[in-house]
Amino acid sequence: MKKIQKILIANRGEIALRIIRSAREMGIKTVAVFSEADRNALHVRHADEAICLGPAASAESYLRSDKIIKACKDLGVNAIHPGYGFLSENAEFAQLVTENDIIFIGPSPEAIETMGSKLAAKAAVAKYDVPLVPGTEKAIDDISEAKSIAADIGYPILIKASAGGGGKGMRIVTKEAEFEEQMKRAISEAKSAFGDGSVFIEKFVTSPRHIEFQILGDQHGNIVHLFERECSIQRRHQKVIEEAPSSVLTPEVREAMGKAAVGVAKACNYYGAGTVEFIVDDKLNFYFLEMNTRLQVEHPVTEEITGIDLVKEQIRIAEGQELKFKQDDLTFSGHALELRVYAEDPKNNFLPDIGRLNIYKRPEGPGVRVDDGFEQGMDIPIYYDPMIAKLTVYAEDRPAAIQRMLRAIEEYEISGIETTLEFGKFVLNHEAFTSGNFDTTFVERHFSPDKLETTEQTEEQKIAVALAAMLLNNTKQDKTQNTSNSNSKSKWKQRARN
Amino acid sequence: MKKIQKILIANRGEIALRIIRSAREMGIKTVAVFSEADRNALHVRHADEAICLGPAASAESYLRSDKIIKACKDLGVNAIHPGYGFLSENAEFAQLVTENDIIFIGPSPEAIETMGSKLAAKAAVAKYDVPLVPGTEKAIDDISEAKSIAADIGYPILIKASAGGGGKGMRIVTKEAEFEEQMKRAISEAKSAFGDGSVFIEKFVTSPRHIEFQILGDQHGNIVHLFERECSIQRRHQKVIEEAPSSVLTPEVREAMGKAAVGVAKACNYYGAGTVEFIVDDKLNFYFLEMNTRLQVEHPVTEEITGIDLVKEQIRIAEGQELKFKQDDLTFSGHALELRVYAEDPKNNFLPDIGRLNIYKRPEGPGVRVDDGFEQGMDIPIYYDPMIAKLTVYAEDRPAAIQRMLRAIEEYEISGIETTLEFGKFVLNHEAFTSGNFDTTFVERHFSPDKLETTEQTEEQKIAVALAAMLLNNTKQDKTQNTSNSNSKSKWKQRARN
Repeated sequence: MKKIQKILIANRGEIALRIIRSAREMGIKTVAVFSEADRNALHVRHADEAICLGPAASAESYLRSDKIIKACKDLGVNAIHPGYGFLSENAEFAQLVTENDIIFIGPSPEAIETMGSKLAAKAAVAKYDVPLVPGTEKAIDDISEAKSIAADIGYPILIKASAGGGGKGMRIVTKEAEFEEQMKRAISEAKSAFGDGSVFIEKFVTSPRHIEFQILGDQHGNIVHLFERECSIQRRHQKVIEEAPSSVLTPEVREAMGKAAVGVAKACNYYGAGTVEFIVDDKLNFYFLEMNTRLQVEHPVTEEITGIDLVKEQIRIAEGQELKFKQDDLTFSGHALELRVYAEDPKNNFLPDIGRLNIYKRPEGPGVRVDDGFEQGMDIPIYYDPMIAKLTVYAEDRPAAIQRMLRAIEEYEISGIETTLEFGKFVLNHEAFTSGNFDTTFVERHFSPDKLETTEQTEEQKIAVALAAMLLNNTKQDKTQNTSNSNSKSKWKQRARN
Repeated sequence: MKKIQKILIANRGEIALRIIRSAREMGIKTVAVFSEADRNALHVRHADEAICLGPAASAESYLRSDKIIKACKDLGVNAIHPGYGFLSENAEFAQLVTENDIIFIGPSPEAIETMGSKLAAKAAVAKYDVPLVPGTEKAIDDISEAKSIAADIGYPILIKASAGGGGKGMRIVTKEAEFEEQMKRAISEAKSAFGDGSVFIEKFVTSPRHIEFQILGDQHGNIVHLFERECSIQRRHQKVIEEAPSSVLTPEVREAMGKAAVGVAKACNYYGAGTVEFIVDDKLNFYFLEMNTRLQVEHPVTEEITGIDLVKEQIRIAEGQELKFKQDDLTFSGHALELRVYAEDPKNNFLPDIGRLNIYKRPEGPGVRVDDGFEQGMDIPIYYDPMIAKLTVYAEDRPAAIQRMLRAIEEYEISGIETTLEFGKFVLNHEAFTSGNFDTTFVERHFSPDKLETTEQTEEQKIAVALAAMLLNNTKQDKTQNTSNSNSKSKWKQRARN
């Protein structure tokens, strides 16, 4: 067992700060790395030491494994935490780190490699009881063979052009009687579009939910799951609101999925923290999609309902310690929600809206956690993921967590940049969300920009707000006023909407 | 059952904001009250409406029950939450509120009255199995009678002049052989000091700990406890660090104390949230001290380990709802610590050190909760309790909670005012605290100002810090630097110590 004394965090922003916090609590020194665009970033200020890797572009800074390894040597670092994104799922990097006698806080290069390839992952999990989306393994063009496969799979099924992509040449068939005609059309479409008429047949997952399981494994073969995260609320196929536990899983399905998730991890001799993603249909059938071999953005919801600090567990595992709990020791209680606060404009297709955080005040109080890497006055750089913060709430049950999140959104004051805060409010107030009756199509099905409360202020309104703020700051001189501050409600609202 | 629609919070600062947050999460409107000194306070800005009660002095503002009742009538308020302090334990106020057809979010006036008097409280709990500190009920002056009583109680015992106070005329007797002589001296001292030679005999509690139990009772006779809070770390006989659970209670003692606490609450037909305080000796014998008939400052540690929002429970109880849990449903997990961040100078006898919060940056991240009523640039008014914030941390166990609190203290940036942050660091690093082997004498026994890390800066240091800050803010122009930011560690330390 090797004690970790100093960690270099090969990442930036909130996740770098998140890792610094856990390391500090464990008495471990930290080294931040930064690009020229991140010189003033919070993760740089919070680390014990910091080193500039190069220009803003990731390829010239955060992805420069050579400079990262050199920094470790120069500063006596004996472990690297890759965070998520950047080099976190790069098997070559993990290998390079290990070869340089530095501890990689993550799984083995082999596990990263296996799970990084859909085909290799499928092959690896074959001997474990892990359900996959049923379908043809090879492309076919024989209609009667296809029809018999479709009958085995069960309708609805999906016909996908083998050369296709982005939805082109895709057909959903809901009953056998329509199969031949649809298959013929698919083949002819595929031929004319791609010059290749062969297709795949796959089960069409109705009302798909994205539900993932958190895995922790040590280097001694012990693997447990820490229950699920529901991540179906997505925009542009990216998660924006996550929660734990899921509001639809029964204890039986949870147990079965947890077992399958542990099976996936076993299939690649996994150690460290990882996430097994499933697609779940409206009858709670679940199918393995992929495994993310790193810490997940949305890990805080799991931390909130289990009380376990996942970063500390990652570090302990990397040191070679055994897991201090078995599956049966693990329980969860309460409910946690996370909203990703992106610098994006929900009224404009969620396009990034970078700029300066003119006002930036975080919500506080019971059950509210903010993970971020910014402060009032800072700029959101254009070069990286435009996430400003992760707003996580915890409460005794799902309705209380939703109400707490809405309260926290109201308290969050951000001006100068459009964010997903108002969008979060829309989702949390929507009946489909509160009832738990939603899937990954939530945004396309229910959202349009006109559903957001208007946040635009006229020039006159802006001036009025500025004047009101000035007056408020000057009222100390005015000791005679003794009337109802009837203005304060609208003031509150105004700030919350900025 | 009466639905609460709008609550007036008859308080200020962090507790007013705390109550606003829970009310908002329940969809209840809030009215803040404020004195002229608190016009810009956060609780005023966060409430839906706010009303000025008068000049800064509490007697002219926060204690003006007439103005508070009038505000309720004017603004259509149907419930008052008194917070802690001010009018919260004033039976007459509770009565007045009720007579005006406003719901008092707290216990009955009778319960407040009974528990407000030590004698009435003792009489009330007599038929419940509630241990009291053994001693004479009346003052006596007969030495042989006193000696026989002392023998019954068991040594060590305390002889207290019945007319005394503040420790005068008090004697600790550790064995029977010394009793007569000490009793004679006590009587003669008491005669000369107070002109009255009669004394009380009481058990002397060795190595006393202050441990209290959180109570919740509904208006239908159901009463439960939510486990204990350890509050032995005190300065000037006032709590400064609290935790839950206690590190010394066994499950058996916890159960017995919980039962006694529920007995105390039953003795006064208690409903609402309340706290039963015990003194506990080094053999875990416990004795009832008093009941606080209100929400306690340190209630967050209980919320953290149980996941229950005590303010929401108070509101539900006041509406007439039944408790939704029984004693057997209640459990706790993990460990929570609270540090009261006071505007006080620990190097100067913890005297208040009011002024302006020049820099005020809260700690964030996993397991950290801040309840406060201030923002950067605000003044701490001289008129009220000098508490700036309650810093609460939650983690999986006590050592992890201690490390998290130390991390949060490091992250907390406060300048312009001396605070108890450094004192908190001293306590949390002290072996007596980390081992759990401490009592209410911790501060007098272990603390002296020279034990704090020095926070004084020379004028040169101050200028250097200011210059460094300016340079840091200007480094965006300087894109050539590519070296280790070796300065950042000391920078971090410096900020944390401000």
